Amino acid sequence: MKIKKISHVAIAGNDPEQSRILYEDILGLNFSGSEPVESEGVTTHFFDVGESNIELLEPSGAATPVGKFLNRSGPGLHHLALEVEGLDDYVEKLKQAGIRLLSEEPKMGAHGMRIIFIHPRSTGGVLIELCEKS
Amino acid sequence: MKIKKISHVAIAGNDPEQSRILYEDILGLNFSGSEPVESEGVTTHFFDVGESNIELLEPSGAATPVGKFLNRSGPGLHHLALEVEGLDDYVEKLKQAGIRLLSEEPKMGAHGMRIIFIHPRSTGGVLIELCEKS
Repeated sequence: MKIKKISHVAIAGNDPEQSRILYEDILGLNFSGSEPVESEGVTTHFFDVGESNIELLEPSGAATPVGKFLNRSGPGLHHLALEVEGLDDYVEKLKQAGIRLLSEEPKMGAHGMRIIFIHPRSTGGVLIELCEKS
Repeated sequence: MKIKKISHVAIAGNDPEQSRILYEDILGLNFSGSEPVESEGVTTHFFDVGESNIELLEPSGAATPVGKFLNRSGPGLHHLALEVEGLDDYVEKLKQAGIRLLSEEPKMGAHGMRIIFIHPRSTGGVLIELCEKS
């Protein structure tokens, strides 16, 4: 069991072109592609930053989790994803510690990663994703 | 001019001990120390994650910027910090592009870094810090 790195910092927004101009044209980050994640109702847009990514989350509709987040809070930081070794052991340890998870078991996310989310009420207000290459 | 990596992801909160239990005891991250930043009215608590840090921001009072953020939004993700080479050139480029900054020039932050913030209105809702070792 090990936290390897920040996998990505996810940002919810409705204007990926405005974000692309900032991150790619002005700040000079490499845009590494877009990928729909149908189970979450989003398209993800990735920019490389060192060993991590900035991940823009563009919802496919207002009734999706990210669409609801935008309606409630407006665009901005959405979650922090940590890449781990031993995801299933982390899930077990978190459950034993009484930490609230958003699902019983990991699901498939973007980039072929298995992912699970820790509820913000158990983290001091931060939606934290743990992910592992499958 | 280059973005080197995510320097840190900053989280605002009032309960550093709860956060320490999560990040150190449960997730197994290394706690690398605390440092007051008097100009910002916060104490910063750092946890190592790969080449980056998670930085907990504990305000020294309700009238500080982070204290006001907590009153307005509650605890949670506060800003994203990117470590750069060529900070002064970035400041010039951002100004030329009409991007709004929180100060005219960089200031001193934690860990001996020169830092400047980009206003969320210019980034799609995200408070972004650019920093460089001084």
